[in-house]
Amino acid sequence: MKVINVNFDNNRYSIYLKRGVIENISNLLTQKTENKKVIIVADKVFRDSVVKKVIKLLDNFEIYIHFMEAGKANKNIKEATEIYSILEKNNIARDSTLIAIGGGVIGDLAGFVASTWYRGMNLVHIPTTLMAMVDSSVGGKVAINFGNTINAIGNYYHPIFTLMDLTLIDTLSNRDYSSGIAESIKCAIISDRDFFNQLSQDSQKILSKERQAVEDFIYKTINIKIAHVQGDIKENNKRLLLNYGHTLGHAIEVSTATDYKEYYRHGEGVSLGIMAVAYIAQKHLNLSSNLYNLFEQIFQKYNLPIRVYAHKIGIDRDTLIEKCMQNIQKDKKRVSNHLRIILVKNIGEAKVYSDIPIALIKEAFEHIIKD
Amino acid sequence: MKVINVNFDNNRYSIYLKRGVIENISNLLTQKTENKKVIIVADKVFRDSVVKKVIKLLDNFEIYIHFMEAGKANKNIKEATEIYSILEKNNIARDSTLIAIGGGVIGDLAGFVASTWYRGMNLVHIPTTLMAMVDSSVGGKVAINFGNTINAIGNYYHPIFTLMDLTLIDTLSNRDYSSGIAESIKCAIISDRDFFNQLSQDSQKILSKERQAVEDFIYKTINIKIAHVQGDIKENNKRLLLNYGHTLGHAIEVSTATDYKEYYRHGEGVSLGIMAVAYIAQKHLNLSSNLYNLFEQIFQKYNLPIRVYAHKIGIDRDTLIEKCMQNIQKDKKRVSNHLRIILVKNIGEAKVYSDIPIALIKEAFEHIIKD
Repeated sequence: MKVINVNFDNNRYSIYLKRGVIENISNLLTQKTENKKVIIVADKVFRDSVVKKVIKLLDNFEIYIHFMEAGKANKNIKEATEIYSILEKNNIARDSTLIAIGGGVIGDLAGFVASTWYRGMNLVHIPTTLMAMVDSSVGGKVAINFGNTINAIGNYYHPIFTLMDLTLIDTLSNRDYSSGIAESIKCAIISDRDFFNQLSQDSQKILSKERQAVEDFIYKTINIKIAHVQGDIKENNKRLLLNYGHTLGHAIEVSTATDYKEYYRHGEGVSLGIMAVAYIAQKHLNLSSNLYNLFEQIFQKYNLPIRVYAHKIGIDRDTLIEKCMQNIQKDKKRVSNHLRIILVKNIGEAKVYSDIPIALIKEAFEHIIKD
Repeated sequence: MKVINVNFDNNRYSIYLKRGVIENISNLLTQKTENKKVIIVADKVFRDSVVKKVIKLLDNFEIYIHFMEAGKANKNIKEATEIYSILEKNNIARDSTLIAIGGGVIGDLAGFVASTWYRGMNLVHIPTTLMAMVDSSVGGKVAINFGNTINAIGNYYHPIFTLMDLTLIDTLSNRDYSSGIAESIKCAIISDRDFFNQLSQDSQKILSKERQAVEDFIYKTINIKIAHVQGDIKENNKRLLLNYGHTLGHAIEVSTATDYKEYYRHGEGVSLGIMAVAYIAQKHLNLSSNLYNLFEQIFQKYNLPIRVYAHKIGIDRDTLIEKCMQNIQKDKKRVSNHLRIILVKNIGEAKVYSDIPIALIKEAFEHIIKD
């Protein structure tokens, strides 16, 4: 078993990474709290698998359950209010534990509820997707959407521990698996050339879910994420580098979605966003096309998109580019009209730029978005 | 002008204490943020006074306003959602500023909204009651109620600065003013004998709102509160002492209220709660009646209640005592069945006790609650 000990601004906890690690939940929970009340918030597709198992393992606990659908449209106040109601009706205390079982939507929503119940109750993450393991469950960002704004209402909050059960990777679709790998590639690009080369060379082992290779790249990705968050829990320069590819990628994700129904997975948005900023970097920093080509190759190896085809989505190309530009102006990371874009000069050398001409951003979208 | 520089877990900000200090708002805000968007959340009774003044002073800012009624019943998700809607509709960013103008209800609710909007936007407190100045606006606790549970959903969050305009004290009713003074007396009891003696001796000056006396006791109260919170932002022993009198007082407040319509002001609950725990201390620690008598005297000087008369409230005495006992069992500060009660042996010597017999707590309610 790999154990990652995290210390974010005096919030210390451990991430346990192993096939079958869920088996330890009762022991770990008993060590952390005397309170025997547990509420499970779970993606309903895990009703007969993970959830059933956890309930059986926690037979000496008093368990309440809220199942939900994993769609982004459900990451809202209404769903949060349903969970608050269960907490209130059953006198769930701050030293009771909320266990979030699911992908990013469930972890973000349940984590937000836990972070605010009596100003913070015990939280345990059991991420079920690769994206939730390497990205959303790590770093303390929890949130719900409001109106048309993603993650409008949120908080910074950490679990008492996180269980990453690698048997869950076996059940992921290829598309969801590759989406998570996009975050690993991003982490490699911003900080670790060796890791980038490894992801490039071992793509066959990783894609065929060879156990050692899987554990290894997940472990490395999480450590890079933690290094960027540590000592910097509030948004600021080092953590900001983790948004590499995200500002433009996010605009593409939102612009191609309808009512929170996504066309692209988050990781697919990231690969597209990275290609867009790689284009910007090449122009803005006068780079050769080497880096750009390297990125294209690795994403293609992992079946991640590098171009948007507007007609496939059923949107007019110009309209889509226009929507992307509007969304980018609205981006919440924008502080007082300075749009901050992260560019990479060499692998491992990421930097924030506030002087990218808006025309060059549009050019990047035009480059990525085809008819 | 008195300036209190606060540093709560690396959240540094200043509290400005002065008659007419609101005049400085434009300068202070301009120093803190480049973003020109401001949302004012205000108790509607200040529409033509404080709010009008602030709008005039911020003539170079883009201002949105949400007025609300100050009743505890409005400290709920519905009201918060109305504010979130204004924030979303008008693209309010995280470096925009929410200014909360009102008492504890407005500060708690607006502070909670600000703490969660994009995981924390700029917040400025302009407390308008003495209770909000010395208690609710200091220490970072923000919250809304949920169902029947007070402060069920909350957060820890600090403003970028706080303006305490002492001209607002002039307009307070005697009852609201005395309610706030109860918190000052509490602070004195748990930590400062000289301050206690001063409050006792200067009661006429303070009750007649003599300017120097007012500034002085407010300043001292805030400094005691800050000393107890500093380095201990999450609930834990030193901060816990600030709850002196609150556990039992809170049970009386809640049990005598109907649908959040209060019978007692918060400070009145505190004086009653302190008398109840003074009774417990006398029995549990075998004290003479000196301390108990001293507390009775000071509360009476300030017209604060020391007994509950059930028939005046229209509740049967036994029913009320029963309700108080139920509420105390439910108290959220209870961790795993240990009810923590703070007792004071001598003025300035407060300690947390987890071994108070439940029967003695009932006896204290019986002592305080008359027919």
